[in-house]
Amino acid sequence: MNKILRIDTKRKEFSYSDPDDRHAILGGRALTSRIVMDEVPPTCHPLSADNKLVIAPGLLSGTTAANSGRLSVGSKSPLTGGIKESNAGGLVSQKLARMGIQAIIIEDKPEEEDYSLIHITKDGVAFLPADDLVGMTNSEVINTLWKRFGEKVGVACIGPAGEQRLTGASIQLADPKGNPGRAAGRGGLGAVMGSKKIKAMVIDDAGCERVKPANKEAFSEVAKKWAKLLTSHPVSGEGLPAFGTAILVNVVNEAGAMPTKNFRTGRFDRAEKISGEMMAELIEKRGGIIKEGCHPGCVIKCSQAYHDKNGDYLTSGFEYETVWAFGAHCLIDDLDAIAEMDRLCDDIGLDTIDAGVAIGMAMEGGLIEWGDKAGAIDLLNKVRTGDPVGKIIGNGAAFTGQALGVDRIPVVKKQALPAYDPRAVKGVGVTYATTPMGADHTAGYGVCQNILKVGGDVDALKKEGNIDVSKNLQVATAVLDAAGLCIFVAFPVLDSEEGFGMIVDMINARYGINLTADDVLAIGINTLETEKAFNRAAGFTKHDDRLPAMFKENLEPHNVTWDFSDDELDSTLSFG
Amino acid sequence: MNKILRIDTKRKEFSYSDPDDRHAILGGRALTSRIVMDEVPPTCHPLSADNKLVIAPGLLSGTTAANSGRLSVGSKSPLTGGIKESNAGGLVSQKLARMGIQAIIIEDKPEEEDYSLIHITKDGVAFLPADDLVGMTNSEVINTLWKRFGEKVGVACIGPAGEQRLTGASIQLADPKGNPGRAAGRGGLGAVMGSKKIKAMVIDDAGCERVKPANKEAFSEVAKKWAKLLTSHPVSGEGLPAFGTAILVNVVNEAGAMPTKNFRTGRFDRAEKISGEMMAELIEKRGGIIKEGCHPGCVIKCSQAYHDKNGDYLTSGFEYETVWAFGAHCLIDDLDAIAEMDRLCDDIGLDTIDAGVAIGMAMEGGLIEWGDKAGAIDLLNKVRTGDPVGKIIGNGAAFTGQALGVDRIPVVKKQALPAYDPRAVKGVGVTYATTPMGADHTAGYGVCQNILKVGGDVDALKKEGNIDVSKNLQVATAVLDAAGLCIFVAFPVLDSEEGFGMIVDMINARYGINLTADDVLAIGINTLETEKAFNRAAGFTKHDDRLPAMFKENLEPHNVTWDFSDDELDSTLSFG
Repeated sequence: MNKILRIDTKRKEFSYSDPDDRHAILGGRALTSRIVMDEVPPTCHPLSADNKLVIAPGLLSGTTAANSGRLSVGSKSPLTGGIKESNAGGLVSQKLARMGIQAIIIEDKPEEEDYSLIHITKDGVAFLPADDLVGMTNSEVINTLWKRFGEKVGVACIGPAGEQRLTGASIQLADPKGNPGRAAGRGGLGAVMGSKKIKAMVIDDAGCERVKPANKEAFSEVAKKWAKLLTSHPVSGEGLPAFGTAILVNVVNEAGAMPTKNFRTGRFDRAEKISGEMMAELIEKRGGIIKEGCHPGCVIKCSQAYHDKNGDYLTSGFEYETVWAFGAHCLIDDLDAIAEMDRLCDDIGLDTIDAGVAIGMAMEGGLIEWGDKAGAIDLLNKVRTGDPVGKIIGNGAAFTGQALGVDRIPVVKKQALPAYDPRAVKGVGVTYATTPMGADHTAGYGVCQNILKVGGDVDALKKEGNIDVSKNLQVATAVLDAAGLCIFVAFPVLDSEEGFGMIVDMINARYGINLTADDVLAIGINTLETEKAFNRAAGFTKHDDRLPAMFKENLEPHNVTWDFSDDELDSTLSFG
Repeated sequence: MNKILRIDTKRKEFSYSDPDDRHAILGGRALTSRIVMDEVPPTCHPLSADNKLVIAPGLLSGTTAANSGRLSVGSKSPLTGGIKESNAGGLVSQKLARMGIQAIIIEDKPEEEDYSLIHITKDGVAFLPADDLVGMTNSEVINTLWKRFGEKVGVACIGPAGEQRLTGASIQLADPKGNPGRAAGRGGLGAVMGSKKIKAMVIDDAGCERVKPANKEAFSEVAKKWAKLLTSHPVSGEGLPAFGTAILVNVVNEAGAMPTKNFRTGRFDRAEKISGEMMAELIEKRGGIIKEGCHPGCVIKCSQAYHDKNGDYLTSGFEYETVWAFGAHCLIDDLDAIAEMDRLCDDIGLDTIDAGVAIGMAMEGGLIEWGDKAGAIDLLNKVRTGDPVGKIIGNGAAFTGQALGVDRIPVVKKQALPAYDPRAVKGVGVTYATTPMGADHTAGYGVCQNILKVGGDVDALKKEGNIDVSKNLQVATAVLDAAGLCIFVAFPVLDSEEGFGMIVDMINARYGINLTADDVLAIGINTLETEKAFNRAAGFTKHDDRLPAMFKENLEPHNVTWDFSDDELDSTLSFG
């Protein structure tokens, strides 16, 4: 039987309990959002003792299902002030599932200033002193902990940004190689962990058995088909493994949807220099690793190891959105400089999207020049050291924009827009506006139908059909996030009549239950409804489901603007 | 006939128009809020071209009515994101009234970076280059402009904070002596003026006649009674002239309502050292000025000139709230240091309340030690120079709290709470929560009935009666703000059966109309309704009408807490 692990950071105690009925068949985001709704006062300060940090593996995590090892981290977001689920790879999800832990709920906060290291094993939870870890970068933390606890343990930790409780702070997770390349990046959850004085968590599943599906044979059978489905689709089976997500640089730029110089145009004339093709070429030349999974059990392998000019490891988990944020958004065309910034963010524990968009705000506000890569790197280093300008950047794009008196600040619910211009990929634009998470491409990745033409063909430049694109993707994504599945399984699932059924079948076989496809879709819908309800109780209204006025400007090359009516946007997540 | 002056900052053009019907008998805050509601898109960015800055004298400004020279400045607030009216003394209100200008509406914003000096005379508006003024403190600006245009002109200007478009930036006004001691301080309106690239406005009424009331004799008669009413009340006639508003230090401290060390207790054990009595003693000893009006026609004279140890002018308009913010809130007990900070704020163009509370956040967040006056002065100086830490402080308390990961941030609608603990002066607490302005004592000064026992006697420590205290005061204050009357006329008006009738009579005699007392109260109610409607359209909900969770803590010495229900708060401004 799965259990809930509750950790009281004030009294340094822990306890296990059985999940109550409403949590029984929930996992990942569905469970973190449910628990946050049930237990966190919506109007509390996100850094106060009243907030909680909830960590949950997906419903399929720990099984042999391909790409089922994604972790959900939930809380009231210090960045948006609303509910947050931030989703990450790494080792933790599979291990928690094997330990029979359905969720960890981290509560209260200590009165003293000392940080703890939380050590979770099959025997329980130990609060260990973390004096030696304080101030360390995430690379240093993971290196230290792997030396101490062995190179198999899962690690979730915060860097200097989380210690400073900056609203751009991430929780970083050790990837399979022990680099801090995976992040629960968005929404400032590292600040919540910092407020609870936890520098790192070690999850050690030694002595725990693999997850045994209730219906083992049925599970094996569908899991095999599932793996084959993922590897046989051109995007998840070929494009992503060959070039990583940075394959999108040329694709999105060609589509005229690459936000350039703080969303002034849709094309970056030097995109080629920061493209996935260029990245793959450099990796190959320098002896890096072209394809790598973000968690054990991944068959898509869109991650990589990017080496510097000397052939030494520089960074991994080097995503398209990061390349865009520090690249086209800031008019920086040097992939090595961008890789260095990705590494800095991983080490300092910063969301690369909000950090990159914040650097753009620093350029917009005249703090540094457009394209000044050395200046940008310097600003990130100052987040590490706690310099006041670092506190500005480290609190994200909305904060940096305000600090510098900028009036073109591309955020929704204070969270920075990612790498797809909402005027030229309208399906994603609707997601930015309406997801309870704040601007987030992963909440409903309309790039599928709009640009990649996966799961349908809906004009990216026109309104028509894109409310439905976003709505359906947001529901489906909430299901994937509940299951612990990587978002990229959406490509084959959308293009196959059997894909979604396989997910349903795997959940049923895993738990020995009989959900229908509609039952599983209802998990997604309920999750969205729960998240909306939390946000309403925290003071959000439909006015928060809007893009900022700057998107009324025309966007070249397609001369498009943001033209959805309020009613259209408000209809997106209406399931009544 | 009064006219509306519209100034287009993009095209550098101006025009006059007749007020339309709905503006005909509106002045001050009633008019600025009406125009902001009618003309500013509620969801626009406050620093964008869509926002407007509206400046209006009161209905009685320019007449011989005592204390009628207060000015209203309205806009969408960069600090709160809602509507804002900020109220100030100085010379401008009387002069605009004499020039027949009912309101100035400053629109759009220039594309180029150059600042302008706006010169307004009876002949029209000139846009003059302001290169020589840029970077100057407000003292320097006023000195320069009085040398250039004569020592009678009204000046409204921004300092380095407004140029940086910081959300704590004020608009400062020359007082009758030419010091920048009067401020439209709250809500960041200096940033709006900065975004429109106006460094200063000179209002020169040379050649304009005094306001002639429609019914001159009736006006004279009631104006005489009015002046006598103000000078014969113990608070406005004795206490305020003798000690200024700082008389409240000992009074509020004795009441156990002086927020100390970021609202941790209600009493500051060193209050005596920063009291109004101490201030008066030092002023007398050093040759300063004990009593001075903030505008011509003032008979209360609660302002002063505070000199330093060498007998040189240091500051004026040195209010209780400022003494509190840099004093008890920060555990600073040195009146000279606090006076220096008041002067710095006037010169840099910063709201002293939000700046002082922000300094407290810097102490709470560990940036400087509690009580570190040198550190506090250094932080303010860094606002002037544009240092990143100055940009943090200069954006106010909410911003500084976030920058430093603080979870006890005393703000409502992002505006800092002033100098009366809401748990121990509950009538003011209700105003903090419910006024559309964000936490603001002047919007409904429950200190009257709660502590001074003016206009009634309602227990400060109990809920009972305090919703009504705040409601009635908020309506009455909106009337005073419409009339251009100083808030301190409330003391005699509340304690006299004839006071309110005199205001009604003066308005009627001034305009040759026949409003009833209810008609005049309706102006106040309509103003509040308009402001609430703007805020709703900007995305505010009843959740924004709440104090932060920190006020659930118990407050010594009276062991009181914040105990109003949501329904009680929501009933405060319901007039339906």
